[in-house]
Amino acid sequence: MPPLTAGAVPGARPSGRTPDQLRSLRLEPGAARHAEGSCLIRMGVTEVLCTASVEGRVPPFLRGKGEGWVTAEYGMLPRATHKRGDREAARGKQSGRTQEIQRLIGRSLRAVTDLKAMGEMTVTLDCDVLTADGGTRCAAITGAWVALHLAFQHLMRNNIMSRNPLSDHVAAVSCGIHGGVPVLDLDYAEDSAAETDGNFVMTASGGIVEIQATAEGAPFSESELTDLVALARKGTAELFAAQRAAVGL
Amino acid sequence: MPPLTAGAVPGARPSGRTPDQLRSLRLEPGAARHAEGSCLIRMGVTEVLCTASVEGRVPPFLRGKGEGWVTAEYGMLPRATHKRGDREAARGKQSGRTQEIQRLIGRSLRAVTDLKAMGEMTVTLDCDVLTADGGTRCAAITGAWVALHLAFQHLMRNNIMSRNPLSDHVAAVSCGIHGGVPVLDLDYAEDSAAETDGNFVMTASGGIVEIQATAEGAPFSESELTDLVALARKGTAELFAAQRAAVGL
Amino acid sequence: MPPLTAGAVPGARPSGRTPDQLRSLRLEPGAARHAEGSCLIRMGVTEVLCTASVEGRVPPFLRGKGEGWVTAEYGMLPRATHKRGDREAARGKQSGRTQEIQRLIGRSLRAVTDLKAMGEMTVTLDCDVLTADGGTRCAAITGAWVALHLAFQHLMRNNIMSRNPLSDHVAAVSCGIHGGVPVLDLDYAEDSAAETDGNFVMTASGGIVEIQATAEGAPFSESELTDLVALARKGTAELFAAQRAAVGL
Amino acid sequence: MPPLTAGAVPGARPSGRTPDQLRSLRLEPGAARHAEGSCLIRMGVTEVLCTASVEGRVPPFLRGKGEGWVTAEYGMLPRATHKRGDREAARGKQSGRTQEIQRLIGRSLRAVTDLKAMGEMTVTLDCDVLTADGGTRCAAITGAWVALHLAFQHLMRNNIMSRNPLSDHVAAVSCGIHGGVPVLDLDYAEDSAAETDGNFVMTASGGIVEIQATAEGAPFSESELTDLVALARKGTAELFAAQRAAVGL
Amino acid sequence: MPPLTAGAVPGARPSGRTPDQLRSLRLEPGAARHAEGSCLIRMGVTEVLCTASVEGRVPPFLRGKGEGWVTAEYGMLPRATHKRGDREAARGKQSGRTQEIQRLIGRSLRAVTDLKAMGEMTVTLDCDVLTADGGTRCAAITGAWVALHLAFQHLMRNNIMSRNPLSDHVAAVSCGIHGGVPVLDLDYAEDSAAETDGNFVMTASGGIVEIQATAEGAPFSESELTDLVALARKGTAELFAAQRAAVGL
Amino acid sequence: MPPLTAGAVPGARPSGRTPDQLRSLRLEPGAARHAEGSCLIRMGVTEVLCTASVEGRVPPFLRGKGEGWVTAEYGMLPRATHKRGDREAARGKQSGRTQEIQRLIGRSLRAVTDLKAMGEMTVTLDCDVLTADGGTRCAAITGAWVALHLAFQHLMRNNIMSRNPLSDHVAAVSCGIHGGVPVLDLDYAEDSAAETDGNFVMTASGGIVEIQATAEGAPFSESELTDLVALARKGTAELFAAQRAAVGL
Repeated sequence: MPPLTAGAVPGARPSGRTPDQLRSLRLEPGAARHAEGSCLIRMGVTEVLCTASVEGRVPPFLRGKGEGWVTAEYGMLPRATHKRGDREAARGKQSGRTQEIQRLIGRSLRAVTDLKAMGEMTVTLDCDVLTADGGTRCAAITGAWVALHLAFQHLMRNNIMSRNPLSDHVAAVSCGIHGGVPVLDLDYAEDSAAETDGNFVMTASGGIVEIQATAEGAPFSESELTDLVALARKGTAELFAAQRAAVGL
Repeated sequence: MPPLTAGAVPGARPSGRTPDQLRSLRLEPGAARHAEGSCLIRMGVTEVLCTASVEGRVPPFLRGKGEGWVTAEYGMLPRATHKRGDREAARGKQSGRTQEIQRLIGRSLRAVTDLKAMGEMTVTLDCDVLTADGGTRCAAITGAWVALHLAFQHLMRNNIMSRNPLSDHVAAVSCGIHGGVPVLDLDYAEDSAAETDGNFVMTASGGIVEIQATAEGAPFSESELTDLVALARKGTAELFAAQRAAVGL
Repeated sequence: MPPLTAGAVPGARPSGRTPDQLRSLRLEPGAARHAEGSCLIRMGVTEVLCTASVEGRVPPFLRGKGEGWVTAEYGMLPRATHKRGDREAARGKQSGRTQEIQRLIGRSLRAVTDLKAMGEMTVTLDCDVLTADGGTRCAAITGAWVALHLAFQHLMRNNIMSRNPLSDHVAAVSCGIHGGVPVLDLDYAEDSAAETDGNFVMTASGGIVEIQATAEGAPFSESELTDLVALARKGTAELFAAQRAAVGL
Repeated sequence: MPPLTAGAVPGARPSGRTPDQLRSLRLEPGAARHAEGSCLIRMGVTEVLCTASVEGRVPPFLRGKGEGWVTAEYGMLPRATHKRGDREAARGKQSGRTQEIQRLIGRSLRAVTDLKAMGEMTVTLDCDVLTADGGTRCAAITGAWVALHLAFQHLMRNNIMSRNPLSDHVAAVSCGIHGGVPVLDLDYAEDSAAETDGNFVMTASGGIVEIQATAEGAPFSESELTDLVALARKGTAELFAAQRAAVGL
Repeated sequence: MPPLTAGAVPGARPSGRTPDQLRSLRLEPGAARHAEGSCLIRMGVTEVLCTASVEGRVPPFLRGKGEGWVTAEYGMLPRATHKRGDREAARGKQSGRTQEIQRLIGRSLRAVTDLKAMGEMTVTLDCDVLTADGGTRCAAITGAWVALHLAFQHLMRNNIMSRNPLSDHVAAVSCGIHGGVPVLDLDYAEDSAAETDGNFVMTASGGIVEIQATAEGAPFSESELTDLVALARKGTAELFAAQRAAVGL
Repeated sequence: MPPLTAGAVPGARPSGRTPDQLRSLRLEPGAARHAEGSCLIRMGVTEVLCTASVEGRVPPFLRGKGEGWVTAEYGMLPRATHKRGDREAARGKQSGRTQEIQRLIGRSLRAVTDLKAMGEMTVTLDCDVLTADGGTRCAAITGAWVALHLAFQHLMRNNIMSRNPLSDHVAAVSCGIHGGVPVLDLDYAEDSAAETDGNFVMTASGGIVEIQATAEGAPFSESELTDLVALARKGTAELFAAQRAAVGL
């Protein structure tokens, strides 16, 4: 824990939020004109454009099985960040971080999709960060669910599907230990200074889809893990409500 | 020229615009929170986010000469288009089209920048297409000028520069022959059907920085070229006015 | 869950192990003749060769700070697996999975290394899978700790360092829900069929360095997470004992 | 404009040519032994070997349409230039300049080819610069027309085609403003010092296929553009005559 | 040649071996659990794991011809060497040396395989160097023959083949001029200092499959070549005996 | 051996040459206008342009040692061959064959160059095949020697060097067993049908620099090897004479 200056409240968040408070949240469904489904998600300053693109074929390993596939790609505009980052297309490859994130997004959405109910089609979820201020992968998962739901609704309206293959909501939020205090939804300032940082992917029915928690400094304890899971449950409950509003459920 | 259906006006534009009418235009300066200068430009449906990033060093070929450099990178979100395109970062290389466009943007902005007045620094102009509907490279040039101007203003406010190295405005517009008629600012529907298509990069003081005009079908004539140049002059005059408004001149 | 054969106990492990039983474990320190430190780790059939290579310089972002760096690379021989996999060098890039794993190994080892105590040097931990049967990334972390410890001992014997910068042990084990039962140290047969699968990286002093837990089918519950953490604690305790024996502590 | 030395004629060309004079021109049809059609073109010192290779299939986007395709690739021997350039094959990618040029060559030749008359086949035009002294892309277009014409004649002689799908000649020449004077067919010395530089692709029947004109220093005016077009028309007229002689028309 | 210590015999081998003495040799068949055939070969300190992987299809150029194919890939663990080498997968390409070696291994094994007798299948021989001390490509060829033989035996036991398509043994050994003396089976110390170094690939029936001999310093003479061939014949005779023992012939 | 037609002489060469007869040979020194040294070599139909480019620095591993470096790159125009080959720059990598050849050329020339006498400079030998009809790598070596010699002469004339660092001639020729008969300088027709094919790199003073001999079908014998070496000696003697004439010795 960094030394406290006189009068500082131990563990106070740079943003002034309470430990269990999400950043201001805004989901803008239909933000991308051409996509079958889309959502621009803003969590505080972080801004991610999620689009769902439908294609009538599946990857080779699924051909002829009558099942569908959901996959994700993630990118960041070079100046989404405080300091310009290299353009991955110019460097000629995606970083390990990018690949790790897009694999996580794909797994998370597949966890709540009935691939058999899709028929042989692929939905690609493109999550592009327009502005980054921490929590971009979590925002991407939460927004991608909306884009995917809208794309399935679009296919139902066009009689390509008879029911929505999404069996549940999925959303994600970061939680961490900052200044010794477990806090919800870290922004960049907190993320850089946190002792422990984790991403929690959960469903509306109460299950955990994925946990990735990492000690940046000292290792964390089991009771801290329990605190983080509780915060994540509270945070995702608010995200599920926002998702429902965005898709009109 | 395609056969006309009964009642159709020869050469009528799909959008209903008059031949010398620009699409609705909107420049949003400062759209990117972290960049030294930025502009979100919308021309009709086309939407390009332009950011200017300043870095205190120059490419190897300029080192020690006391001059600056302005360069550009161009990208398109995978679902900026009607049909999803491959992500260049995933394919591992930028297409020939991308490279051609970013070279054009860089040349155009350098044409109105006094590189010696910059000192040893590089400004990278990232132009990322959020939605594509024709004319993205021209919108990128027009918007990049605003981003670059704002970045220079930022450096002046911080006493890093004493005067703005931009010596003139630069803007670009596409003009083409569509249905036998020379028209200004082609959208995607016109662009796909045009007999001739050109990009015209001009300065406010009346000069031509670059012309790229291509016959897609039959070759075009010198008098048609003259018509296109005149349209471009009219169109860029409106773009210069919008740039001035955007940067507060 | 696969159909049970007559007499099979529900949830019984394919290997016949009890739910909290590690596979047979063998650490062979010094297995690589040329490396400053090395360890061949076998967990059941899984076999990973870990080497620590010391180099007297640090990556650009650390230059001049007087600190060291620990990083990892991971690879798999093409026929380490049941079915031959492509050679990543021939394909021209490392998969997302490979990058994700090597980033995890590096983070895990850095979590117990006092980088300041290293001085400006880099240790690269190469973890190459000779035979794969599940749990390769966990075995790599456990074996890499031995290789790193031996490399630091080597540097101390050569008076390049006065004390070992490793502040604690780190080891990893996979735990998962298989056939409805939480089990320790999944082999390939279990891993392919598990409902939930996680990797737990822990220290000897009782802390958690990293958790990555993923629901492959239905989401998992908090109480299941608690069970998995407890199994991981038991398993890593045995791994720490083996590490101590391997390095002669 | 550089300062004039005593007695220098303003705008005099380094080569002593008059402003509207082409360099010495030589087309050597059939220069490549194995190709279906070929032409070695020399314009002054610039030397480009153009070959046309016929293959009985088309790119995926044309399959089953009964049409053909004409495409181009461009390269430069590493020591075609004054200073050795990197070998693109060794660097592992083609530069933006290379891609821009080969796209221009392909478009130019397709503009005068009746692709439907070709049937499902592809002709690849390889334009490799053996010696560079300015104007290589223009020489490539002019020489590629001869190679393509000869390849079609070859296919007609072998009864694979009944008529030549080339509907017109196409040739290209660079024109620019040098020392304040519009000049035809710039060599390297002029090209490096020109205020404006353009490539003009034209047909024998009087049409313009493509114009790419760029101000290297100050922007150029419309009347200068008119002058350059007139020079290009004169220059291409001589190129068409040489093409006719080369293919025996 | 390194300076001689008192009493050293000019040209004496660093290892103390006689000029025509192989290093200690050990072939461990079946070393890789999952492969259809495998062999871990040790020649002195050099250690190469060779696996043969069978796949029921052939490269495009052989499809439909009813013939099989044998190919090889070669790799080296990053710390197989005294100083860590870059991981080729991380660099994104195989070095020229690697490609040269794997082409040699493939050619050598195909020279003694009746491809027609294989039917349409491919065997890929992966030769991965675990420890390098000179002669790795030769060890790879000798070990790969054992792996290939065992893979064919496996296919015969499974009634996929009725006879073994290997028509002869093939093995390889390096020979060179060291300290003026022709010597057999150079280790790394000799290899680095040798005046001439060659790899000799031979068959048990007395033929030469491939010779690659290179003067590192002064050119060599025909009589030296003759000496090297004789040494190679002696060395490979011992290798053939070891191969026979390893496969149970 | 293919079946003989009536009247055919066993082993007769497709070209009608006697077994020990080179193809018509022509060396054109100075063929590349910009290079410090160059030579266009024609052996029969095979045509290779060799250029030597001088650069005042050395690769990292030689820096500060006061020595020079000679290296080579090899390429083939896409339509140098009967059937068009892929352009390596477009594929994004050099083939294993290309790398193998350019390494051979570099080694061969370094074998006769006193690198210490060069001082810190690099000469890059670019060998580009304009027309291929067998024996391109050998022609490249022979022609590269002329280019290198001329480049050194150029440096001597400019007082950058006081003596030519080439200590001897080097040249190469292919020899093989064709139709049971050892023959010199195989063309493409022979090369494709030869039982054994080898490249022999020799010096004018009688030494062997490199031998690469490969059995394409049945292994070859030691006496056949002796025959091939003798042919190579005769062939290279003629090549040395041509080199002397080309450089004016």
